[in-house]
Amino acid sequence: MNAHCVSYEQLTDYTRAIFLRIGCPEEDAMLATRALLSADLRGIDSHGVARLSGYVRLWEAGRVNAQPNIRVIHETPSTAVVDGDRGLGLVVAAKAMQIAIEKAKQVGTGWVSVQNSNHFGIAAFHAMQALQENMIGWAMTNASPLVAPTFSKDRLLGTNPICVAAPAGEEPPFVADLATTTAANGKLEILQRKEQDTPTGWVQDKEGNPTHDPNILKQGGALLPLGGDREHGSHKGYALGAIVDLFSALLSGANYAPWVPPFPAYVPMPAQQPGKGIGHFLGAMRVDAFRSVDEYKSHMDHWIRGFRSATPIDVAQPVLVPGDPEREAEADRMVSGIPLMDSVVEDLNALSQRLGVPSLG
Amino acid sequence: MNAHCVSYEQLTDYTRAIFLRIGCPEEDAMLATRALLSADLRGIDSHGVARLSGYVRLWEAGRVNAQPNIRVIHETPSTAVVDGDRGLGLVVAAKAMQIAIEKAKQVGTGWVSVQNSNHFGIAAFHAMQALQENMIGWAMTNASPLVAPTFSKDRLLGTNPICVAAPAGEEPPFVADLATTTAANGKLEILQRKEQDTPTGWVQDKEGNPTHDPNILKQGGALLPLGGDREHGSHKGYALGAIVDLFSALLSGANYAPWVPPFPAYVPMPAQQPGKGIGHFLGAMRVDAFRSVDEYKSHMDHWIRGFRSATPIDVAQPVLVPGDPEREAEADRMVSGIPLMDSVVEDLNALSQRLGVPSLG
Repeated sequence: MNAHCVSYEQLTDYTRAIFLRIGCPEEDAMLATRALLSADLRGIDSHGVARLSGYVRLWEAGRVNAQPNIRVIHETPSTAVVDGDRGLGLVVAAKAMQIAIEKAKQVGTGWVSVQNSNHFGIAAFHAMQALQENMIGWAMTNASPLVAPTFSKDRLLGTNPICVAAPAGEEPPFVADLATTTAANGKLEILQRKEQDTPTGWVQDKEGNPTHDPNILKQGGALLPLGGDREHGSHKGYALGAIVDLFSALLSGANYAPWVPPFPAYVPMPAQQPGKGIGHFLGAMRVDAFRSVDEYKSHMDHWIRGFRSATPIDVAQPVLVPGDPEREAEADRMVSGIPLMDSVVEDLNALSQRLGVPSLG
Repeated sequence: MNAHCVSYEQLTDYTRAIFLRIGCPEEDAMLATRALLSADLRGIDSHGVARLSGYVRLWEAGRVNAQPNIRVIHETPSTAVVDGDRGLGLVVAAKAMQIAIEKAKQVGTGWVSVQNSNHFGIAAFHAMQALQENMIGWAMTNASPLVAPTFSKDRLLGTNPICVAAPAGEEPPFVADLATTTAANGKLEILQRKEQDTPTGWVQDKEGNPTHDPNILKQGGALLPLGGDREHGSHKGYALGAIVDLFSALLSGANYAPWVPPFPAYVPMPAQQPGKGIGHFLGAMRVDAFRSVDEYKSHMDHWIRGFRSATPIDVAQPVLVPGDPEREAEADRMVSGIPLMDSVVEDLNALSQRLGVPSLG
């Protein structure tokens, strides 16, 4: 176990204090904390507390409004567009998801496209809010342009994740949360720290040549869409990333494609932005809008067990169901605590000092 | 151009005569013909008239009902479940899409899950019905199990395509239609005919070893999910294929996973089927349920132009927008006719003789 291992409670208290310090109302500070730390619990270390100081820097740069007036600006019985008023995406998306759930209660499904928001943490946190309502949840977001479409030198899309969370009966839920690239940026960061090459099909250099350099994004290179190259289906990964952009931004009035605001506060905003902030898309589908919940759940259990009992290629590695690794990480980290890298602890200590908030200790 | 090149009109008359001959009502015969031949027009030769005799064989085997009573068996304002009554998927899915569109007119979006159907041709035909209504269309279907999930020897999923069709303004629509595998089965068939190897990451043998043999499916091998292997994101392709199965079958009561009925009529039906027929999922989202159509369309045009004018890696290959190659094929084939391979012409001649329908000539 890591030298720095903190309990979920300890990390919660600390993170909440930071969000309160920048002016978030009590309820929002708690919601943002739960959303952010769900990444640390689920083993997605790149998207959790390691980004806390990044969110604060956006607030310091005036790009995050800690007290947003999040409101519906257009709606029908099954849809809404939400203006996030430059709030933390962690909070804006969570509230938009509640609107989707309320609409699903009324008419079977609810679909909310969000403009004027910021990064929302992991998609799974938002999609999974539907589970306790016996609904299927969807969450998507666009993100800073780091991905080159098939045949392109230019970076025009973010890693634009898609999450679908579907409840089961006795089995744990199905939770698929995937960046539409071969590998997410967090995977590159791990290889950078280890000074290891990337596998083929993850990145290209600024001329569009294949490369194995995990630092290539800093030199104008790009992440590649899921598939890697045309022969391996990168046009499909590109299409999926594009779909996320359409639902998150073209439907909401957020920025899209290369105009999505960057996460690092020191990167200048793109010129001639066509929309407001970044965009998300949240959906909720009542299971019983299609068939009885009991019937659905017994078939979901049957489906899940069928996959988990498939013949593995290697007996040491059973076939997994989407969501299995993250659920296991969560069960483990709730008990054993959350390991933090030295660099993250140093970053949080500096943040504490700057904001005058007691350090994590 | 091919020795056998027939006009769209000629192929339409022929195909319609076949569907009428097996007992389809006039309207259904025309709808099935339009759906089937949309594949030939769009250059997806594997899914068009080349499969006509396969559909007839399913009818001969009693698995296709030419005069189905297609009906809604469960609904809410934004959702429905449709029982296809073993009809041609070409017809069942098209009618289910109309139900989705009607629901979207009422409450903003409409979502229809379909049980008890058969193969529906290309997903794009169904999703694109939404375009003329200023709606975004979705179409998915599950299919015969040919795909091994990550880490599995067993084939548990179909190539399970996802299509999203979104209207634009002056630009042609965005139409992304993708199998959730590295390569669709039709691509393997092309390599089989050319006696060429498959690229890495397309298929595995029955023990789960990588192979380049395009005939490996006949020896218990499997197609691989988009990504190819774990290191290149195959768990994402697997998750996407699984999502299609959930929406198409777990929500509708159709068969799922390895229990989806095979397309070839000579392959025995799986034992202990948990549902009815194969499943589809159709969706329609009114653009103006989110924002004004004019605003949306001007931004879609901006988005599309941004991608099409991106700096290409190779000046000879500009960056494409999903749907470009298929639209170009359609424009060309409407004028120049549809090329048919010798084997397809022979198959259609045999079909004509068997059914007593004048041959294509």
